[in-house]
Amino acid sequence: MSVYLHDVPLEQARRHFQDALSTAGLWGRLGSEEIALDEIAVGRILAGPVWAVQSSPHYHASAMDGFAVIAENTAGAMPTSPLTLIVGEEVQYVDTGDLLPAFANAVIPIEQTEALQKNGKMDSQLRAPHAIRIRAATPPWAHVRPMGEDIIASQLVLPAGHKIRPVDLGAIAAAGHTSIQASLKPRVAIIPTGTELAPIGKAVEPGDIIEFNSVVLAAQIMEWGGNPTRFPPVVDDFNMILQTTLEASRYHDLILINAGSSAGSEDYTASIVAEIGTLLVHGVAVRPGHPVILGLMPRNNPNSEEINSSVAIIGVPGYPVSAALTGEIFVKPLVARWQGSRPEEKPIAKATLARKIVSPAGDDDYVRVVAGRVGNDMIAAPLSRGAGVISSLVRSDGLVIIPRGTQGIPAGETVDIHLYRSPEQLENTIIAIGSHDMSLDLVAQFLANMGSRLVSSNIGSLGGLIALQRKEAHLAGLHLLDPQTGVYNLTYIKQYLSDEKIRLMGWVNRKQGLITRKENPKNIRSLQDLTRTEITFINRQRGAGTRILLDYQLQLLKIGAKTINGYDHEEYTHLAVAAAVSSGRADCGLGIAAAAQALGLDFIPLFDESYELAIPLRFINDGTMTPLLELSQNQEFRRLVALMPGYDITPMGKHIADLP
Amino acid sequence: MSVYLHDVPLEQARRHFQDALSTAGLWGRLGSEEIALDEIAVGRILAGPVWAVQSSPHYHASAMDGFAVIAENTAGAMPTSPLTLIVGEEVQYVDTGDLLPAFANAVIPIEQTEALQKNGKMDSQLRAPHAIRIRAATPPWAHVRPMGEDIIASQLVLPAGHKIRPVDLGAIAAAGHTSIQASLKPRVAIIPTGTELAPIGKAVEPGDIIEFNSVVLAAQIMEWGGNPTRFPPVVDDFNMILQTTLEASRYHDLILINAGSSAGSEDYTASIVAEIGTLLVHGVAVRPGHPVILGLMPRNNPNSEEINSSVAIIGVPGYPVSAALTGEIFVKPLVARWQGSRPEEKPIAKATLARKIVSPAGDDDYVRVVAGRVGNDMIAAPLSRGAGVISSLVRSDGLVIIPRGTQGIPAGETVDIHLYRSPEQLENTIIAIGSHDMSLDLVAQFLANMGSRLVSSNIGSLGGLIALQRKEAHLAGLHLLDPQTGVYNLTYIKQYLSDEKIRLMGWVNRKQGLITRKENPKNIRSLQDLTRTEITFINRQRGAGTRILLDYQLQLLKIGAKTINGYDHEEYTHLAVAAAVSSGRADCGLGIAAAAQALGLDFIPLFDESYELAIPLRFINDGTMTPLLELSQNQEFRRLVALMPGYDITPMGKHIADLP
Repeated sequence: MSVYLHDVPLEQARRHFQDALSTAGLWGRLGSEEIALDEIAVGRILAGPVWAVQSSPHYHASAMDGFAVIAENTAGAMPTSPLTLIVGEEVQYVDTGDLLPAFANAVIPIEQTEALQKNGKMDSQLRAPHAIRIRAATPPWAHVRPMGEDIIASQLVLPAGHKIRPVDLGAIAAAGHTSIQASLKPRVAIIPTGTELAPIGKAVEPGDIIEFNSVVLAAQIMEWGGNPTRFPPVVDDFNMILQTTLEASRYHDLILINAGSSAGSEDYTASIVAEIGTLLVHGVAVRPGHPVILGLMPRNNPNSEEINSSVAIIGVPGYPVSAALTGEIFVKPLVARWQGSRPEEKPIAKATLARKIVSPAGDDDYVRVVAGRVGNDMIAAPLSRGAGVISSLVRSDGLVIIPRGTQGIPAGETVDIHLYRSPEQLENTIIAIGSHDMSLDLVAQFLANMGSRLVSSNIGSLGGLIALQRKEAHLAGLHLLDPQTGVYNLTYIKQYLSDEKIRLMGWVNRKQGLITRKENPKNIRSLQDLTRTEITFINRQRGAGTRILLDYQLQLLKIGAKTINGYDHEEYTHLAVAAAVSSGRADCGLGIAAAAQALGLDFIPLFDESYELAIPLRFINDGTMTPLLELSQNQEFRRLVALMPGYDITPMGKHIADLP
Repeated sequence: MSVYLHDVPLEQARRHFQDALSTAGLWGRLGSEEIALDEIAVGRILAGPVWAVQSSPHYHASAMDGFAVIAENTAGAMPTSPLTLIVGEEVQYVDTGDLLPAFANAVIPIEQTEALQKNGKMDSQLRAPHAIRIRAATPPWAHVRPMGEDIIASQLVLPAGHKIRPVDLGAIAAAGHTSIQASLKPRVAIIPTGTELAPIGKAVEPGDIIEFNSVVLAAQIMEWGGNPTRFPPVVDDFNMILQTTLEASRYHDLILINAGSSAGSEDYTASIVAEIGTLLVHGVAVRPGHPVILGLMPRNNPNSEEINSSVAIIGVPGYPVSAALTGEIFVKPLVARWQGSRPEEKPIAKATLARKIVSPAGDDDYVRVVAGRVGNDMIAAPLSRGAGVISSLVRSDGLVIIPRGTQGIPAGETVDIHLYRSPEQLENTIIAIGSHDMSLDLVAQFLANMGSRLVSSNIGSLGGLIALQRKEAHLAGLHLLDPQTGVYNLTYIKQYLSDEKIRLMGWVNRKQGLITRKENPKNIRSLQDLTRTEITFINRQRGAGTRILLDYQLQLLKIGAKTINGYDHEEYTHLAVAAAVSSGRADCGLGIAAAAQALGLDFIPLFDESYELAIPLRFINDGTMTPLLELSQNQEFRRLVALMPGYDITPMGKHIADLP
């Protein structure tokens, strides 16, 4: 079995693909179609430039409701010596937009006239006066929109390759057109492959993978202006995939074969491309996503009136993050090119890297980060690197691209973030680093509705204190018991954060206890049970408040860590501990009741603890915390937190202490 | 006739409208609908938060193709003392994504194993080996994606009000959902009114206005997530507009009545709203757009199952710029609110104002500007203020908002631009200020295809020199004849731009002459004819090269300016002069042959002139000009310019002089 593929550098892969596409006549606009302006083709790309065929206005138009006049005839009118002009002889009434009568070269706005009856009396209610009186002269062309003021026939209105916005449709109509020539939408077939794939909605068994990559890819292609076709999943069978690919080639410009692009026993894409076309690239030195295939095949449609006889193929890796980034890196520029436009660039923000990133020197590495402004600094923190962790893309504020030849970036360096959001959205962000509490999910939910944003990074209470020390966070959630005093958090803040004023704010009291399987089959009742040989424990990471609590209680009970199976296996959140128990990886772990309830597990309450928020005072004074402070008093929010099992919201929002 | 309306400040109008909508139950989400993930609802707004109902992965999954193993059994394996493990007994083959077998707690990637036959011989081609040999120990959970690595059941996946992106659909599927609850799209009726309106495509007579506002408004509403209905234009008849409004109220949440919102003789909207509902606001102190109407009416649908019994009405002013900005200011926030989201904020850029803006102190003033970086400064230049000039919105890079209470902003001030484009797009902009040449339209067209951008401001040759002096432009197009020497441009550059190195680059030689009506009915042959009393001339503005040329030639011929009818009427471009002749406003003007041809006019050639580009050397050295320099050598571009009547491209791209 051939288990190797040759990663080539990204730029080389792109160039090779582009050269082959050029040779095949597939490196330009695919064609165009006429779309009536009535069809509101917003977002479509202009296939050619739009030149004005008519001026706008297409006649001299009155710019006001008033009276058309020969400007020269108004000479001498003054407040003290008004001038009377006979309607129908010397002046003529016009509405805004009316054609300026041929005799006239100016308009006097109605507000600047006095209406006169035939007897010379003034009458402000007169709709059709006999004459008007004016008390100022009017210069030529006053209150007239001359022909061509907006657009002159023969002018360039919009260039080819332009993406249509609402106002463009108005300008194109004003310039005398009734339709646009839009670039054809590239047609992209998406073929999911894999015997293990379960369509969305099918009940899943362990080992089944929910097939959602084709939905993400189709959505991306629609966003980029293409026209996707999702094929039903094909099992891992060389001939079935090959037949589906031939079928798809009839009426598509690009075929995406999802998964099977690596070199495992059931990875057929490369050999299929080689069999029916040209395998140009197998493996690109880009991370995540390296088992990418780039190829070309002849269109399998003998009776075709298709312009292009070739079809591009991209083998897209199966991991969701790899699939989505392969879309961005390879599909997006192609779909843009085929419409005669350029892919939209992401906005870039400079930021300080909060934690170091290690990266393989051989790859272009696309690292997802979250970002927000902390004081004067824009801070970027890397998210999970796993190619399977699609939530890292969902949570991501942007990408930091570490170029090939670099082994990583140290903490504190300035990096460019290619943003998924606007820079403005990063400004209204509260960065919480520290211990996880499930109420933070609710905070995120409520803040989003208030136009603000919570980004939380769960690295334990001590991690939160260190982040505040490094000025990388706006607040830290803490539940750190001081074994000497039995008091929560104060000692630790004094120790770690002596150089600026910190407010410790109350949040919740919550029950800590043992999370066990449903109906607690091994009858676990206390920490003493952890030493039983048939019990496997799952621990929290060092620095986590729960870990400190466990170690403190074990010490009181004189139980040695070595006597507990699984003491060395660490998870980073309460929910992750519960998930480990739920999956059978462990029999129990120490955590909060809400996590047990969330996954339908049992809970043996053991201790009460204070979960509090440490907030540098400057973020309270400068308004950063205002949304959170308001939220702490929001009745609906408090009600929902109080409903969480084992939660007491009495301390929420209370002033505990200002330190030092 | 009541010709007055009362402008109220924007904030007060908004608050009054919001209060009335709140009372009517129309200030929140309108409702929601279920949309299957398969339907790719990108851009829709989540009506509620998405909580995970399933973990992802939903089982412990192998992260590699390889062999599942009990990690503890690999202890002691080393390069020099390999370990052999029997397939089917001690290890089991797994593909990436397969369920980790219950016995195992780690996976050894296939690349780190040696396949053995039953006889103990190695065989790298063996698909189903008898045993594997390993040369390193494996830690527990290596190459395993534990259940919940990505998403843990019960976690918040996305908050309510979130706008769906492609990757979100993947995460929602991974979290166990098959559909989303999306906010209903607000239904917006658009009723164009006006007897003068001509639908797009109808041949227009003078006085007809092409009805495109409804297309622009519909496109805006679609972009903001609403569902627009365009009604056919209604003539200016109180009852017909009233009946159409009642009809529209049956199945819409908002009715936009376009035009008739002012207080002229045929402006019925305010009285209609007062008759069938509540007229809340008539007139808002915002420019452009002040005759805005805000109101509410009861839904005219007795058998309705509609949730809301009220419908909002907005009277939208008729000028295209006012209409589009009224959409942005009043409709956009409402459509967002009704979907439970917030309007997307435009990115903001700081810029230096190139020219002063005068603004009425009583209004919030929305000024369209173009912008680009010149050296270290981002420069913003105001565009035409006319509410009828939709091309000003098309060309606009963003808005500068001058708040009520301010009478304007002096040149050189720093302003905030609310950007229509990304800040990145402004970076690749060449700003040309100076004399207009029709080849600049082609430059803009070609640069757009090269990923660059030309923004040109046509204020005449001298204006261009002053812009370069003030460091507000990258280049100036000049055709300034020195009457002393008969040489073009050099004298003027020396005079105006002594403090930095300027390159004068050749561009085109072109014919200047008299533009007359078709077939030259008044038989105009030379400048002497301009003194004939029956001839009306149209002039170019002071500082324009064409004006200097005219004055020079008149002096040679000893013709006094006073003897020419229309000498004082000025236009700013060749095309505008041609348009004045075409419309009958003048009999002739001095200009270039191409302008005459563009509008189908006659041309009497009189003089040759050099149109050249003055470029500060630093913009050649720093690469800003590279796209333009490339373009000057582009064969297709040169061919198209050479085809323009009266054009000679011999000098294009040639080095004339570096000054001083």
